Amino acid sequence: MPPPDPEDGGLALPDYLDRIRHKGLRDLVVSADQAAALIKDGMVLGMSGFTRAGEAKAVPLALAERAKREPLKVTLMTGASLGNDLDKTLAEAHVLSRRIPFQSDPALRRAINAGEVMFIDQHLSETVEQLRTRQIPGVDLAIIEAVAITEEGGIIPTTSVGNSASFALLAPKVIVEINTSQPLALEGMHDIFIPTYRPARMPVPVVSPQSRIGLPYIPIPPERIAAIVISQKHDSASNILEPDEDTRAIAGHLTEFFKHEVAQGRLTNQLAPLQAGIGTIANAVLHGLIDSPFHDLTMYSEVLQDSTFDLFDSGKMVFASGSSLTLSPAKGASVMPRLAEYKSRLMLRPQEISNHPEVVRRLGIIAINTALEFDIYGNVNSTHVMGTQMMNGIGGSGDFARNAFMSIFVTKSMAKGGRISSVVPMVSHVDHTEHDVDILVTEQGLADLRGLAPRERARVIIENTVAPEWRDLLRDYSARATERGGHTPHLLEEALSWHDQLRRTGTMKPE
Amino acid sequence: MPPPDPEDGGLALPDYLDRIRHKGLRDLVVSADQAAALIKDGMVLGMSGFTRAGEAKAVPLALAERAKREPLKVTLMTGASLGNDLDKTLAEAHVLSRRIPFQSDPALRRAINAGEVMFIDQHLSETVEQLRTRQIPGVDLAIIEAVAITEEGGIIPTTSVGNSASFALLAPKVIVEINTSQPLALEGMHDIFIPTYRPARMPVPVVSPQSRIGLPYIPIPPERIAAIVISQKHDSASNILEPDEDTRAIAGHLTEFFKHEVAQGRLTNQLAPLQAGIGTIANAVLHGLIDSPFHDLTMYSEVLQDSTFDLFDSGKMVFASGSSLTLSPAKGASVMPRLAEYKSRLMLRPQEISNHPEVVRRLGIIAINTALEFDIYGNVNSTHVMGTQMMNGIGGSGDFARNAFMSIFVTKSMAKGGRISSVVPMVSHVDHTEHDVDILVTEQGLADLRGLAPRERARVIIENTVAPEWRDLLRDYSARATERGGHTPHLLEEALSWHDQLRRTGTMKPE
Repeated sequence: MPPPDPEDGGLALPDYLDRIRHKGLRDLVVSADQAAALIKDGMVLGMSGFTRAGEAKAVPLALAERAKREPLKVTLMTGASLGNDLDKTLAEAHVLSRRIPFQSDPALRRAINAGEVMFIDQHLSETVEQLRTRQIPGVDLAIIEAVAITEEGGIIPTTSVGNSASFALLAPKVIVEINTSQPLALEGMHDIFIPTYRPARMPVPVVSPQSRIGLPYIPIPPERIAAIVISQKHDSASNILEPDEDTRAIAGHLTEFFKHEVAQGRLTNQLAPLQAGIGTIANAVLHGLIDSPFHDLTMYSEVLQDSTFDLFDSGKMVFASGSSLTLSPAKGASVMPRLAEYKSRLMLRPQEISNHPEVVRRLGIIAINTALEFDIYGNVNSTHVMGTQMMNGIGGSGDFARNAFMSIFVTKSMAKGGRISSVVPMVSHVDHTEHDVDILVTEQGLADLRGLAPRERARVIIENTVAPEWRDLLRDYSARATERGGHTPHLLEEALSWHDQLRRTGTMKPE
Repeated sequence: MPPPDPEDGGLALPDYLDRIRHKGLRDLVVSADQAAALIKDGMVLGMSGFTRAGEAKAVPLALAERAKREPLKVTLMTGASLGNDLDKTLAEAHVLSRRIPFQSDPALRRAINAGEVMFIDQHLSETVEQLRTRQIPGVDLAIIEAVAITEEGGIIPTTSVGNSASFALLAPKVIVEINTSQPLALEGMHDIFIPTYRPARMPVPVVSPQSRIGLPYIPIPPERIAAIVISQKHDSASNILEPDEDTRAIAGHLTEFFKHEVAQGRLTNQLAPLQAGIGTIANAVLHGLIDSPFHDLTMYSEVLQDSTFDLFDSGKMVFASGSSLTLSPAKGASVMPRLAEYKSRLMLRPQEISNHPEVVRRLGIIAINTALEFDIYGNVNSTHVMGTQMMNGIGGSGDFARNAFMSIFVTKSMAKGGRISSVVPMVSHVDHTEHDVDILVTEQGLADLRGLAPRERARVIIENTVAPEWRDLLRDYSARATERGGHTPHLLEEALSWHDQLRRTGTMKPE
């Protein structure tokens, strides 16, 4: 057995051997460089990692190093975004030809927008369906971070499940990165379930956030494990910001709205299973529920952020199901050493299951996602700045918004110091159509669009969600468009002019 | 018991009494005028009817007559579009204040586009979810066409189920229209299932198109039946056109594509359960499968059209599940008298179940829907002419396209004698985003977009689906937009100019 390479994170404590419980696999431990040598030019790599949590860390860095000496290109599939600047490092090493299904890195984003990396932006529940049915090229090699390997050779994931289970099950070869910095308390928190194959597929039997339907590890034949690498790099901390005045106002509007729904008998004080997208605003909205009359809350979401643990600690939340744990430095320092205390209230699932349309619809989820901008009819752009520049990707927002009991989008009403209105005549790119948007919230207020026709939506959106300095401009546009007529009135020659002006002058404000 | 009014369709044969098997309900037979008198100004009516099939016919006409003498406004919810010019008659009688969730009538369309009728255009699987959770105003009165009432008071629907079951179950009062022109052979063809209520909802147990999971009638307490009206008006025939050269070419491209998928091992010769949207093109595509190597086909769709029966008769199809039967005059004349022969191969379900995301995803459906236009990146507009004028509505296309194994959109590459290109730089309204569109087909050819980034999609779409006289214009737009950059390159100042020119000059062709 070769000794672990100290450059893979300064290792090695001898206790990693305890983490490879299948004794026959212990001989497979190699350095990250040796494992990365299994990667061939043109391969499709399926790698663990979801919202900066649980990504393989040592092998992709070794791959980027190797690419300096030897040009090679790969397709990289993950669960979602990666931490440890991996997407940056890989993009700058020019090793990525294609990237699927989500990212959030500025350097990679630049390469995507320049047309250097082909980015396939997908609903996060769908990637493995397309892989399984071979509608996209199959995974040649899976690289999965694990806390341990079971005696049977099963892989116990770390802080995310993402697409790891399907990658490992579908790939002919698997590299496992045992990360000794990930607490063993993670074991038992995962619920690995793969839908049966069509045409004999049965229902996904999740009937509550608490439903346990699978195994606590990824069951693969041990002979498919081609190499094991030991690492001890930590997950990157979440980069969300503290709640500010605007996000607190958004949370306040939404809390008042929920109270109203309870008063109307449409919700109870338990609300409904909550989903919240990644990021500062959605986190702040959940955080706002600490000071609310609601109780016994549950989450059925993709990423579990600081607010989930704040709600646990305040006694407001009883259970949270997700696909990853992504915490700030402070929250991570407080939670990770005490993870065992939270374990009975947490479950991490494959993103196909955390985001599954079947389950989202069945459970009746309240979905809270962030819009980049929305228009006066309630169409939402989550991804494209000025209709052309990719920001991160649609992520799971479509999986949830389409099938939710109640689909809520939140954003601040302005961006870039007031030079951009987040409410526009027509969005420059549509990720969520009016059909999938029930409630819009900015710091200005809340627009309840349920049961409204487009002309009615325009009125409610403009009067409730727009910053005062933009309101007259939108009223004027709407009035002139309505005069021209139509179910969804627009002035096509002017509908995208705000964005075009932003592109030309750096502000949407009229010249 | 008052005699039926002969003006409600020239009735009455005495045999209608046999169709009211619950003897205690026979006293409820009244004229359509008497039943329509139960409707009050401002009510929400939930009426049967889906794609011109199985709508209540006598009461809405009596309502339109009454509105001539006495102004009144109602909200009308149905399954989908109505036959017998009911939407026209009601729109012209100015009796509709709101219309939910679909329509396809020119007169009603004009009123919607003029802002006189508020139209709530919904995913067809979602209306009853919103009703059930009281997120839209509840149904005050249900009006349901039936072939018969069972001894227990259950309602046996006719040629469609649509939203009838939920309307009848949720409304405090129900008017039943027994239509003696609808064959009793329809009895036993329906499968009425209502999902259990949240938070205790269980899976929808459909695991194949053939799964029978419910009752053959709508089980309501008989005391909620407020009136029974006898009618014998026929359903309107479908208004689809015969296949022409273009639709045959579309069918041909798709058949070749399916053969290729079989050759690649991604499909078998049984294909997968098929869904086809309403209309001439989708019907022609299915019709094209008669001359194909495929066999033992099934459908899990919303509307079953002529092609379903052509495929039965040719021995190609073994089972079809839908929410309605909508046939041409010739096919109706041939099928309806022999309906019993087809019965073991047919099932009609509530549209919530025929279109349910859970079931669509589980079964792995091949979804074939019609686009009004699509853009070079694969976004689809199904509803709005020039981005503003409502045509029919999104219908079930979103329920299927989002969750399908394979989502296909078809259209002719040009409209209005070549003055309009169906492929445009940017669609003027988005109903289906690039994420939900796998395959695009016109008479020119087929674009397989699976696994492609937007820049790659543009190339495949322009080279394969665009009519020759528009190809250079789109190549030019795409080249100039790509030069400016972005993940999804666009020239915002020009992206909608084709539509604006169409509005101004009647053609998209450059001046």
